[in-house]
Amino acid sequence: MVFFEVAKKSKKSKARAGILHTLHGDILTPAFVPVATKGTLKTIPPKDFKDIGTQVAFVNTFHLTLHPGVDVIKQFGGIHEYAKLPIPLISDSAGFQVFSLGGKKKIKTREGDEGLLLSIGEEGVRFRSPRDGKELMFTPEISMQNQEKIGADILMAFDECIPSGVKYEYSKQATQHTHDWLLRCIAAKGSPSTRSARSGLQQFLYGIVQGGVFKDLRVQSAQFVAEQGIDGIAIGGVSVGETKKEMREQVGWVAPHLPQELPHHLLGIGRIEDILEFVKLGIDTFDCVEPTRLARNGTVFQRQETKFLRIDLLKSKYTKDKNPIQKNCGCYACKNFSLSFLHHLFKERELLGYYLATYHNLFFFEQVFKELRQSIAQGKL
Amino acid sequence: MVFFEVAKKSKKSKARAGILHTLHGDILTPAFVPVATKGTLKTIPPKDFKDIGTQVAFVNTFHLTLHPGVDVIKQFGGIHEYAKLPIPLISDSAGFQVFSLGGKKKIKTREGDEGLLLSIGEEGVRFRSPRDGKELMFTPEISMQNQEKIGADILMAFDECIPSGVKYEYSKQATQHTHDWLLRCIAAKGSPSTRSARSGLQQFLYGIVQGGVFKDLRVQSAQFVAEQGIDGIAIGGVSVGETKKEMREQVGWVAPHLPQELPHHLLGIGRIEDILEFVKLGIDTFDCVEPTRLARNGTVFQRQETKFLRIDLLKSKYTKDKNPIQKNCGCYACKNFSLSFLHHLFKERELLGYYLATYHNLFFFEQVFKELRQSIAQGKL
Repeated sequence: MVFFEVAKKSKKSKARAGILHTLHGDILTPAFVPVATKGTLKTIPPKDFKDIGTQVAFVNTFHLTLHPGVDVIKQFGGIHEYAKLPIPLISDSAGFQVFSLGGKKKIKTREGDEGLLLSIGEEGVRFRSPRDGKELMFTPEISMQNQEKIGADILMAFDECIPSGVKYEYSKQATQHTHDWLLRCIAAKGSPSTRSARSGLQQFLYGIVQGGVFKDLRVQSAQFVAEQGIDGIAIGGVSVGETKKEMREQVGWVAPHLPQELPHHLLGIGRIEDILEFVKLGIDTFDCVEPTRLARNGTVFQRQETKFLRIDLLKSKYTKDKNPIQKNCGCYACKNFSLSFLHHLFKERELLGYYLATYHNLFFFEQVFKELRQSIAQGKL
Repeated sequence: MVFFEVAKKSKKSKARAGILHTLHGDILTPAFVPVATKGTLKTIPPKDFKDIGTQVAFVNTFHLTLHPGVDVIKQFGGIHEYAKLPIPLISDSAGFQVFSLGGKKKIKTREGDEGLLLSIGEEGVRFRSPRDGKELMFTPEISMQNQEKIGADILMAFDECIPSGVKYEYSKQATQHTHDWLLRCIAAKGSPSTRSARSGLQQFLYGIVQGGVFKDLRVQSAQFVAEQGIDGIAIGGVSVGETKKEMREQVGWVAPHLPQELPHHLLGIGRIEDILEFVKLGIDTFDCVEPTRLARNGTVFQRQETKFLRIDLLKSKYTKDKNPIQKNCGCYACKNFSLSFLHHLFKERELLGYYLATYHNLFFFEQVFKELRQSIAQGKL
């Protein structure tokens, strides 16, 4: 079975519609990948995935390593079985936590306050667990081993996500780590491609392009990663604190160097306006916490003609509003509940509110992607 | 249409199986009435009621009056339509808040700390809103008016729930309030029975028996309430801080005086062991937050032969446990998820955990009641 097929290419842009084949099902691309960090898509039980249209989800290796632990998951036969997720899954490498834990989060140790990120070196990264302060290490080998135990369909190579505002030399060295680590990931996996020697599972490996805000580093990184015979290619670090313009620039630098026969994933990007632009540059899949996280804050998506609006359900103007979030939306929330009732649920912090808002936002994203795929199929994008 | 039919009486006890007919459907009794305080059964979307077996739910007039306000609900045509609850509903009278707000809850006012319960008098009860500190009043007339606007199928008369530890004279006066207020509720409703003159809805009125911990007051209260031509009779105040033995005593005093042709509701009691005893005394319906509230704390029900156990999902002994909460349970949680995964969800405070635990507990209660009805039908109880 071929992993990735391009079914249709747009004539007006680099956009393409395709299919990713995995043992847990096919993913029609362009696809949105909602984030089920700890093995759960937040409020949404897996029985709802079909109605929502959720094709694939993202799980986080760092979080699952901390709890319940990758050995527990392996004992259940992998995360699909453990968390009863009946769809293809992508696991990250824990590389993003190099960035996110290197930020402001500190914990108290015997010696005083200490950041959660202890060191980054050639070997790998030392962290403190945000759960209990215990020191732990991630290396390319540990990342691959843990991802094999988790058992997702698509794995990400271990990379160093570069914080914003750092200098050229720092970015260059971090990008070098990412490249060295990719080679070690491939070696650890036993095969660069679909046959995962150790796990026996069909697990596809994506390499990650880094390079920070520097064009030459980004281009070199794309070229290096593209040459390693991996199953797919992901662009990392684009979501890290830059402006929208810089973000588009970075993807623009990389896009021409992405092998056309490989699937292209953009890590951590989920603003609909950005997605539309990046699909035109040839990106196939996007993971982001945007629809689920915003939903839990009471922010839901609405479309008005070609505009995408975010509306805040906590606003008192919805107190008596009999309309659904989105007229003609086919989701469970919109087919049944008024803005007034949703406003009431959020005002009262009722759990059903988080469910309904999440349901709508995920459904909304799936609709946008369905239309994107149709546009590409019709040669319109 | 007759409101209440007794279909079968047990020969060994006063237990009976019956049907409550309402415009929103029938309720097979004995029935459990889960509590949807603010119009939502916490984590459970109404589309799940059928699979869980939820026949009826309880909504709280006090809370709905504070938000979204009874006029908003009325504008939507009532709580069934507003909250999309496709089942018969019972609303309380706000009388229980006389007790619950009279407790330790205090808010800051300009003059300093102040309890939320300001005064209880013949006219009614003055509260401070726990939302914004505003003073508000509940009287029998206001309670009926608000309950008519909410539009539940079964209404409770406004009563004074008596705190534990008070003396005979206090209990006697409070019980007198409850009786006087029942007459005013009947007058306010326009009819003591099924025809609600003002609302035009078919709303059945239950009177509430009080009397505290004193046998003569309890018996007098039952006799008084039974004579007022109401549609059903509820026993209040039994859950208020007494021992299990005292609780059973109180229901035991009242039970012989409940008219057999009326349905009997016991307010706020939901321990399964107690329910079994009280069904034998002729109680038909029970509302309680027990299964839903415990679920949100990670406590779920399990049956081992004739014993009902509560298990704490947060315990580390479940870390690797591949069993469901209850073997052979037909609920969505048990048919799909392991104790290990549920433990993981609760440890990580993932919202799906609250959903699955609530789902199981409600399903579990429905199974117990289904078996109770079968036992009665077979003349076994």
